[in-house]
Amino acid sequence: MDEFALIDRFFASRVADSMHDREDVRVGIGDDAAVTHIDSGSELVIATDTLVEGTHFIAGTPAHALGHRCLAVNLSDIAAMGAEPLWCTLALTLPEGSADWVDRFSVGLLTLANAHDVALIGGDTTRGPLSVTVTMHGRVAPGAAVLRDGAAPGQGIYVTGRVGGAAAGLALVQGANDDMTLLQSDLVRRFLYPVPRVAEGRALSGLASAMIDVSDGLNVDLSRLLRASGVGAELSIESLPIDAKTVERFGRVRAIDFALSGGDDYELCFTVPAEAEERLRRAASTWSCEISRIGETVSGSDIAWREHGRAFSVSDSSFRHFEQEAP
Amino acid sequence: MDEFALIDRFFASRVADSMHDREDVRVGIGDDAAVTHIDSGSELVIATDTLVEGTHFIAGTPAHALGHRCLAVNLSDIAAMGAEPLWCTLALTLPEGSADWVDRFSVGLLTLANAHDVALIGGDTTRGPLSVTVTMHGRVAPGAAVLRDGAAPGQGIYVTGRVGGAAAGLALVQGANDDMTLLQSDLVRRFLYPVPRVAEGRALSGLASAMIDVSDGLNVDLSRLLRASGVGAELSIESLPIDAKTVERFGRVRAIDFALSGGDDYELCFTVPAEAEERLRRAASTWSCEISRIGETVSGSDIAWREHGRAFSVSDSSFRHFEQEAP
Repeated sequence: MDEFALIDRFFASRVADSMHDREDVRVGIGDDAAVTHIDSGSELVIATDTLVEGTHFIAGTPAHALGHRCLAVNLSDIAAMGAEPLWCTLALTLPEGSADWVDRFSVGLLTLANAHDVALIGGDTTRGPLSVTVTMHGRVAPGAAVLRDGAAPGQGIYVTGRVGGAAAGLALVQGANDDMTLLQSDLVRRFLYPVPRVAEGRALSGLASAMIDVSDGLNVDLSRLLRASGVGAELSIESLPIDAKTVERFGRVRAIDFALSGGDDYELCFTVPAEAEERLRRAASTWSCEISRIGETVSGSDIAWREHGRAFSVSDSSFRHFEQEAP
Repeated sequence: MDEFALIDRFFASRVADSMHDREDVRVGIGDDAAVTHIDSGSELVIATDTLVEGTHFIAGTPAHALGHRCLAVNLSDIAAMGAEPLWCTLALTLPEGSADWVDRFSVGLLTLANAHDVALIGGDTTRGPLSVTVTMHGRVAPGAAVLRDGAAPGQGIYVTGRVGGAAAGLALVQGANDDMTLLQSDLVRRFLYPVPRVAEGRALSGLASAMIDVSDGLNVDLSRLLRASGVGAELSIESLPIDAKTVERFGRVRAIDFALSGGDDYELCFTVPAEAEERLRRAASTWSCEISRIGETVSGSDIAWREHGRAFSVSDSSFRHFEQEAP
């Protein structure tokens, strides 16, 4: 048996433990394909995201963090639809099959999967430059998926948690050289271990009129939502939930830049009709993260950021992962 | 809009044309995730396969052939479950976004997708070393998926079509140097454009007791089926459907080696209980490919190939794609 068959068997045995009471997974890892069941009252939600070394993460990223991250970014997509995650497949391309690396990667991935009751149902392990593609499946009640195009003028614009911390963490990593103590900092942890807002996303189905997750930067992702909905927005810099640790380390101006144009936050950005905002506040009071009302949708297509009433210009150089640094 | 956003838009516009009458696809390309519907009388079948340049295909493989191939290998997995293909996602990693390359790739992929009524519902395009991961979704009636573990002693062992031609085509490509006329040969075409046995696979649900597709070589893949089922086999070299053009070009001995240990045929290998063999023959008489009965399952775990009654030793060096040539 070659090393890749061993890796597949390794995943299969780890996963088997968590499969005992999964009636929705009829056939998991090990056949030509997986077989699953979804109840007739649900629609299926399917997302796929690839992480490539040198583009989405730097060489030497801890295997545990990468295992967490490849699942987290896909969970975030499912969350942004207001859906409940169910199953995933893993396509892992490895330059060499170091057992220790795969062990740590799988712990990172499966720990997060188990936390969200997500079953790893299949995959493909191949040799090549390091890259991971996860396809995540979830469910929603028919018609309940929250799309990008549902916002109308006069609705509140919200974001979960705090934005910019991941980009600040990345900046620390890139400037760290060999200072490994930095890897322990909260900001770097925020970059390495994004927290997908799965429970919050599900709770927002029925509340939010449109939703997107913040992967490429708040301004870019919000602009996508607004364009898809055919509305503009008036937004307030002072309402931005910037991160206190980022301000402390980089100053307020740079923290705002990270918040607007950085990426990898994996917070949810969404719109809520005026009549549902009180219901949102009550729901969010029980969440593990705060929410911030950063502005309102308006007719037209203009997106206007203001700081204390004065126009604020956002750099349109959106965060492009590591493309500048890529070989 | 950056080049990758342009590629996504390019796929979305091409795909939109074929989506008009797809009630099962509620949301396709363009949101955080796709939303689909599957009727309550079906189970969902999910397969994923990655093709990496240098491992699964050589540098310079025509973009059209690669687009065809990445879909074909996944359709073959769905076929090997006896399922009907429905939707796919595409994760495409590209070193640079040449519009012409993407155009030819998309034509190769979408032509095959349309032929099988498969909807491209989502994906992710990123920068990095050339690699393609497709995740394919299909459906079967509850309990009707044909697994690898259903064979019992005394059952016929069959294979669709002819085996070894793809490996012969690969050998031609590898020895071709700059002789581009070779790319027109039937054998090279067989390697570049595998034909997934989708209709045959569906017809085999209810007939075959176990099934697998031949991706790594007939002997290796059949051994997987036999091991999963806990049976052995007696097999006949003279019943092997080797390819006439392969014999003509490489001689009979090498043609048999290609047939047993070559890969990339994407034929179906399956077992059928004795009482269903007549029904199989009647069904197969209408198929576009032949079937061959190459042996029988037996008790135990021995896999014995015989040629005119004498033991025939199969090299256990299974086909490992291009790993030897990979950087």
